[in-house]
Amino acid sequence: MNSKEFSNHLKINDVKINDPFWNKITEVVRTNVIPYQYLALQDKIDGADKSYCIENFIKAGKVIEKLKKGIEPEKFPVDKWEYNENNCDKNAFHGWVFQDSDAYKWLEAVGYSLQNHYDKTLEEKANEYIDIICKAQLDNGYLDTLYIINDRDKAFSNLKDYHELYCFGHMAEGALSIYNATGNRKLLDAACRFADLICDTFGENKIKGYPGHEIAEMALVKLYHQTGKKEYLETAKFFIDERGKRPYYFDTERGVESTADNYHYNQAHIPPRKQKEAVGHAVRGVYLYSAMADIARAYNDDGLFDACKSIWNNIENKKMYITGGIGSTVDGEAFSFDYDLPNDLAYAETCASIGLIFFARRMAEIEINAHYGDVMERALYNTVLSGMSEDGKSFFYVNPLEVLPEASKLDSRKRHIKPVRQKWFSCACCPPNLARLISSLNEYIYTENDNTLFVNQYIGTELENSKAHIVLTSYYIESGNVTFKINCKKPFTLALRIPSWCDEYKISEKFDIKNGYAFIEIKESKNIFIQFKAEVKLIKCSNRVRANIGKVAVTRGPLVYCIEEADNGKNLQMLRLSATPHFKYENGIILADGFREKEDDILYSEYTSPNIKECTIKFIPYYHWGNRGENEMSVYIKI
Amino acid sequence: MNSKEFSNHLKINDVKINDPFWNKITEVVRTNVIPYQYLALQDKIDGADKSYCIENFIKAGKVIEKLKKGIEPEKFPVDKWEYNENNCDKNAFHGWVFQDSDAYKWLEAVGYSLQNHYDKTLEEKANEYIDIICKAQLDNGYLDTLYIINDRDKAFSNLKDYHELYCFGHMAEGALSIYNATGNRKLLDAACRFADLICDTFGENKIKGYPGHEIAEMALVKLYHQTGKKEYLETAKFFIDERGKRPYYFDTERGVESTADNYHYNQAHIPPRKQKEAVGHAVRGVYLYSAMADIARAYNDDGLFDACKSIWNNIENKKMYITGGIGSTVDGEAFSFDYDLPNDLAYAETCASIGLIFFARRMAEIEINAHYGDVMERALYNTVLSGMSEDGKSFFYVNPLEVLPEASKLDSRKRHIKPVRQKWFSCACCPPNLARLISSLNEYIYTENDNTLFVNQYIGTELENSKAHIVLTSYYIESGNVTFKINCKKPFTLALRIPSWCDEYKISEKFDIKNGYAFIEIKESKNIFIQFKAEVKLIKCSNRVRANIGKVAVTRGPLVYCIEEADNGKNLQMLRLSATPHFKYENGIILADGFREKEDDILYSEYTSPNIKECTIKFIPYYHWGNRGENEMSVYIKI
Repeated sequence: MNSKEFSNHLKINDVKINDPFWNKITEVVRTNVIPYQYLALQDKIDGADKSYCIENFIKAGKVIEKLKKGIEPEKFPVDKWEYNENNCDKNAFHGWVFQDSDAYKWLEAVGYSLQNHYDKTLEEKANEYIDIICKAQLDNGYLDTLYIINDRDKAFSNLKDYHELYCFGHMAEGALSIYNATGNRKLLDAACRFADLICDTFGENKIKGYPGHEIAEMALVKLYHQTGKKEYLETAKFFIDERGKRPYYFDTERGVESTADNYHYNQAHIPPRKQKEAVGHAVRGVYLYSAMADIARAYNDDGLFDACKSIWNNIENKKMYITGGIGSTVDGEAFSFDYDLPNDLAYAETCASIGLIFFARRMAEIEINAHYGDVMERALYNTVLSGMSEDGKSFFYVNPLEVLPEASKLDSRKRHIKPVRQKWFSCACCPPNLARLISSLNEYIYTENDNTLFVNQYIGTELENSKAHIVLTSYYIESGNVTFKINCKKPFTLALRIPSWCDEYKISEKFDIKNGYAFIEIKESKNIFIQFKAEVKLIKCSNRVRANIGKVAVTRGPLVYCIEEADNGKNLQMLRLSATPHFKYENGIILADGFREKEDDILYSEYTSPNIKECTIKFIPYYHWGNRGENEMSVYIKI
Repeated sequence: MNSKEFSNHLKINDVKINDPFWNKITEVVRTNVIPYQYLALQDKIDGADKSYCIENFIKAGKVIEKLKKGIEPEKFPVDKWEYNENNCDKNAFHGWVFQDSDAYKWLEAVGYSLQNHYDKTLEEKANEYIDIICKAQLDNGYLDTLYIINDRDKAFSNLKDYHELYCFGHMAEGALSIYNATGNRKLLDAACRFADLICDTFGENKIKGYPGHEIAEMALVKLYHQTGKKEYLETAKFFIDERGKRPYYFDTERGVESTADNYHYNQAHIPPRKQKEAVGHAVRGVYLYSAMADIARAYNDDGLFDACKSIWNNIENKKMYITGGIGSTVDGEAFSFDYDLPNDLAYAETCASIGLIFFARRMAEIEINAHYGDVMERALYNTVLSGMSEDGKSFFYVNPLEVLPEASKLDSRKRHIKPVRQKWFSCACCPPNLARLISSLNEYIYTENDNTLFVNQYIGTELENSKAHIVLTSYYIESGNVTFKINCKKPFTLALRIPSWCDEYKISEKFDIKNGYAFIEIKESKNIFIQFKAEVKLIKCSNRVRANIGKVAVTRGPLVYCIEEADNGKNLQMLRLSATPHFKYENGIILADGFREKEDDILYSEYTSPNIKECTIKFIPYYHWGNRGENEMSVYIKI
């Protein structure tokens, strides 16, 4: 761990984005995604799955009113994962058990968005939701509409499967974002009251439980950094320390006895500091690993950091799609075994890649290692961006690397693979998660410490801090050209991540390479010109991955490309690239020479070399697929 | 349909098998499988899943005794698919709802076996079971132990999901086999009483239902042929005619309203004569299609035969593995969509290939078309034989074309893929089905009509009929050499199927080719020498099948070969055949020159031609895989 050196990411207010690639995306999020989700949370989008989210807060608010008047509210069962018109009373909670979190994620996105671009109407909408939410809180700080509406007595009785601590985590993150944007403390105070209740409830000599779906750990650390209240950090650490201990708390609370196999899903099979492999539900996993990194850093805990490194290496080297997708199996939305990365059955949830970015940034803040920025980039430009349509009005939850629309309809093994983005999901974790990540993109570009400013992403930005005023002008995606205009206030080191995809680059200053970064001593104001040679590349996958034997993927810079039926006709599996193809790149599109096999109507026949015809194959960026209606898509192509 | 020409298969008693390849297999079935299953049905095999089959008949017998004494027996719920120690009363029915059928299938195998090889002890064992079974029959002829033990009032109340008519079908087939072997009418009479009840219960102006799991249709036709009782044939036809009519009977009996989508599984989405594609549960499918062929023939119904042909073509050309496996998806153990034939997710149930052989023979008996014999051969020598271990004591239910033991354990999408054969299954349809097919193999070799003897399989046999006494000496598998020694009684035509795998053959007599058969006029006693040149071949799969792009399978004669880890090491996906390999064939083993890729530890890297090393690749017959413990296996190999 000789490369261990702490740094902190710059905050939204310190970094303004102005980037030819990203401007339109952040603008779509601001002008379309956030307003769209405001309506979706109130079930005002025609043809979209119902959310019930705001409705639940309103119902819970009415319960609180009754309680204040001394009226005992009606009770309803608390025994489902999803509640809807068909399986519960109309006055009961509706939606998934974690439905509250969607409002919090939306508020978090709004907070970031307001910091980037103040908008009075949007602030008013946020305040409207905050008022509705705060009316739903119990006097003791508890806030989970499922239990408040259906049965308060059962609160915290099923940490394994129910999501109160998860909802709390999102509440805290949303509250912090809003407070930093508007100074409105109302939601933050509410979140702190809930946090206080949690700290009073869980810990040594208290209930020795921990979250079934991790995130409260990360949120408590954030809340600690904002408020300085040590209990928040300690409770986060307690959750990490207690997880996976025997007897399992998830057994104890249910009065059963089960084996480690039952808790891989929740990463609670063994204590986190003994974990070496990414397992179980992928989103839960990366949220836990992020918190482990937080605690490892806060307590300078090398043992816990070693566990984070092992898990990181396992993900990066054995369990990640070329698109930065993770969690390859639909069953449990989970990490599969090493090298099990099927293209057509992939799960690769948008949220999981977002969580991977959280984990990556935390690791980058602990250790100088360009891999973290590389993986962040891979996930961001491919799976995360693919999660949203061009217009920001439809979303992918699952991000496959090969799609045959017929199969999605007819093959139940692929029912999770949607050939086109959906308007909304009853389980809508991904769209608001995407909104909050893109709205806070500024926070994933730089980290710094006293001496060094690390550049992890080449996104056009303007920043001002104690070291310098810097304008980063970026044509990273189009040409690989990047310019830093630095107005130096004091000497510092600029550390530039050399992207893993780049073999050839020029930097107009003298530099030293260490751990994948080019370190440049800045002693005076200057302009630095960088050219990352962005070529079209053929990428092979390890031959341990059975799905990709004999195939390649096409990339250019950080973007993974794919082929679609709209450009290349049906039966994409019949296409083949030349062994040494000539590429033509224009306006984000790649053309390559290749071959198309003649369709072979006989099911089994004696082998002859395939009957092929030359053709031009058109590749588009992966994140852009599925914007032209239902059609075949494939990232990998035969060579 | 100019090739339509009826023929009938020869019966066991007319054909004695003596074949260097098959003798040891039929002997294993006779001496190991049948005695083993006798014990399994009584739960006397250590470590095997419980059957409960005979126990249920004994329990039902006790219910009948009580009824005779006027004692009303206790009732139990009838609401599960599988009943066991944990979910039902110890006095209630145990096992799957179709558990009775295992005894009937065993008896059917025993009947065939006794015809081939009389064995007094085995006959006594059969009689012992027959006595136990017959004591379980109600006075009105009804016999299904689930309903007799648990709740007689609910008989025939759930044709869709419960299996009374299915059990009846197997009962009738078992009874016919035993009767033909020993002349013991007891079970046959019982089956006819049950058949009479069924004919009285279902039909025009009666209950307009039909079986959820088809087979009663086939069985009723067989029973009609034995007894001449027209009602049996008519009821079989009624079941075919009524199936898929709207409103759906399966809706009516449950008081619901559903769409065609709900009944693809049972092939009851539309009437059989309108069906053009093989859909739904594959075993149910081929049992229905067999019965459709029976009825098409019995009524000379061209419309129904056309439906059979369409379905046949769909299976043969679009939905069949190279191994003759059908039903490629685990979900519903069902046919998937056209060309969806994944290797590693295959279902390809042993029973489905057995049913495909039933369908094939019936089609061959209607129309002269060598395809039927070809498919029969493909299924028989590959998927069916693969269903059983060398010693006949363990079995495959599912017959994948690619196996990674790690994946079967860790990937829930592959939990149906067993890397080694199992001792028994709680749902043990396949092992006794295999026993009955292998024990009656004689019936799948020849069909004949007044003029012609069709040879569909080249299995060493001696037969005597009105045309001739014939000894077929076969080295079909080893060398492709086959000799017919014919003692002619009257002139006839001998029609020899030219196997689809054979490009080059010599026949010592003059012949005409028609519909894939070589027709030879036999006017006097003579010997005919045939040489089917059996070469090692590389077979490609249509490029519409995505799983096999860039790969080939190796075959020799009717046998599909595979590679196993035991011979070729781990990571079979890293092996590659030379484009024009040199093959060495010896003792059933094929050696070929090829390459092994160096293991590639980096998950994503710039494409370079694979780093390969020459090696010899060893192939064994597919049916023989998994006899050396858990290991990787693959039928297809990269080329």
